[in-house]
Amino acid sequence: MPRNNPKILVSNDDGIDAPGIYALANEIKKMGDVIVVAPDEQQSAVGHAITMNYPLRATKFYKNGKFFGYAIDGTPTDAVKLAVNSLLKEPPDLIISGINHGANTAISIIYSGTVSAATEGTILGIPSIAVSLTTYGKPDFRYAAKVARKIANIVLKKGLPKGVLLNVNVPAVSEKEIKGIKVTRQSKATWDDWFEARRDPNNKEYFWLTGRLVTKDKSDDTDQAAVENNFVSITPIQYDLTDYEMFEKMKKWKW
Amino acid sequence: MPRNNPKILVSNDDGIDAPGIYALANEIKKMGDVIVVAPDEQQSAVGHAITMNYPLRATKFYKNGKFFGYAIDGTPTDAVKLAVNSLLKEPPDLIISGINHGANTAISIIYSGTVSAATEGTILGIPSIAVSLTTYGKPDFRYAAKVARKIANIVLKKGLPKGVLLNVNVPAVSEKEIKGIKVTRQSKATWDDWFEARRDPNNKEYFWLTGRLVTKDKSDDTDQAAVENNFVSITPIQYDLTDYEMFEKMKKWKW
Repeated sequence: MPRNNPKILVSNDDGIDAPGIYALANEIKKMGDVIVVAPDEQQSAVGHAITMNYPLRATKFYKNGKFFGYAIDGTPTDAVKLAVNSLLKEPPDLIISGINHGANTAISIIYSGTVSAATEGTILGIPSIAVSLTTYGKPDFRYAAKVARKIANIVLKKGLPKGVLLNVNVPAVSEKEIKGIKVTRQSKATWDDWFEARRDPNNKEYFWLTGRLVTKDKSDDTDQAAVENNFVSITPIQYDLTDYEMFEKMKKWKW
Repeated sequence: MPRNNPKILVSNDDGIDAPGIYALANEIKKMGDVIVVAPDEQQSAVGHAITMNYPLRATKFYKNGKFFGYAIDGTPTDAVKLAVNSLLKEPPDLIISGINHGANTAISIIYSGTVSAATEGTILGIPSIAVSLTTYGKPDFRYAAKVARKIANIVLKKGLPKGVLLNVNVPAVSEKEIKGIKVTRQSKATWDDWFEARRDPNNKEYFWLTGRLVTKDKSDDTDQAAVENNFVSITPIQYDLTDYEMFEKMKKWKW
């Protein structure tokens, strides 16, 4: 049974000053005690990076003159680790990472700082949720924040098995257009990306990454398909990377 | 059937000047055409980070007066992406990342730059292997390089299914003490880590991460158990993070 006033840690990868974490924290405050611990600057596509060779600092961060949370000069993983291990007196009941500005579906999951913050929470034994809004344009985080609260309430009630986190993607459409919530699997879509080769003012070559997500995975039970069809997507993910089918097969190979 | 002179891309996360990649490249040259493309400096624990907001540069790197490979001012993932997409005329037949100085077993896999370089190769559709030597002390990479070559030959012959890479960990003992090669699964061991809170010369607080791997997973078919018992560990891993058991269960939840 969840307690009346659950403690909820909120983090992200867009940085503590991003509008997405502000919308999320304000909505989650309606259901419990929120503490915000997040990177001090944008940390997208950092994957599950951790800082080992440098010290970390936690600085109080104020928004509109009021204390909002702790800014960490590290990665999303660092922020969650430091919050749970050092800044909080007791472990939180739940961790929510987001709201990310941009989708974290398909292969993007493994590059995502938003997801890695929630993964770290799960590794530390705390039920964790990553939330992303699937637009790179001007975002409106209000509905995504409401969905995050709804899912957070269900997770607090039901719990999550050890080693499992939820990756939530919310379509960037108006609440009226949302068709519902769908439990999905990670799409097999990958990035078709390439580097633009350019010349700097001194005529030295440099490369700039660009690309687009290519959906080869056409079935409708994926995260990608859900958000394209205006469903909120919830994917249960885990960090045991073993391919068990191949594990059984390879045991019979001659080494 | 593999071609006579396979093209093999070698990368790592310890940086192009690390002894591990030098030992690996020299050994792999015995079986094919090697091209080395690796980060210009140490990139451990960067996870699957990619560089999107900055340009990348590739600089020719010389070792003992001879051209050794291309140094990239980015992450291991960047190096593999840039090599395959821009620097090589055709995709390599195989990618090997390593030899990492230090184990990449259990939960360390998800923080590992060595593994993420091989993961990126797999995402790009190329059979890929990550190789690590399980010591943080003074390393001798010779036997690990030989094992890497052996496994590389088997992978070239047998191929790997789409989306699967091999994570190889070699115990840091003499060749005589090695008991064999074992196909394993990722151990469920996690890091029990904490932050040391210290004061800088100006009396400001800072935090430094430290910790140790705690093996709660006692079965003997794990990567961790294999290397502890002097077996070379080969774990087939994949990047579809969906927890399919939970996926089926959660479909029945009321949302």
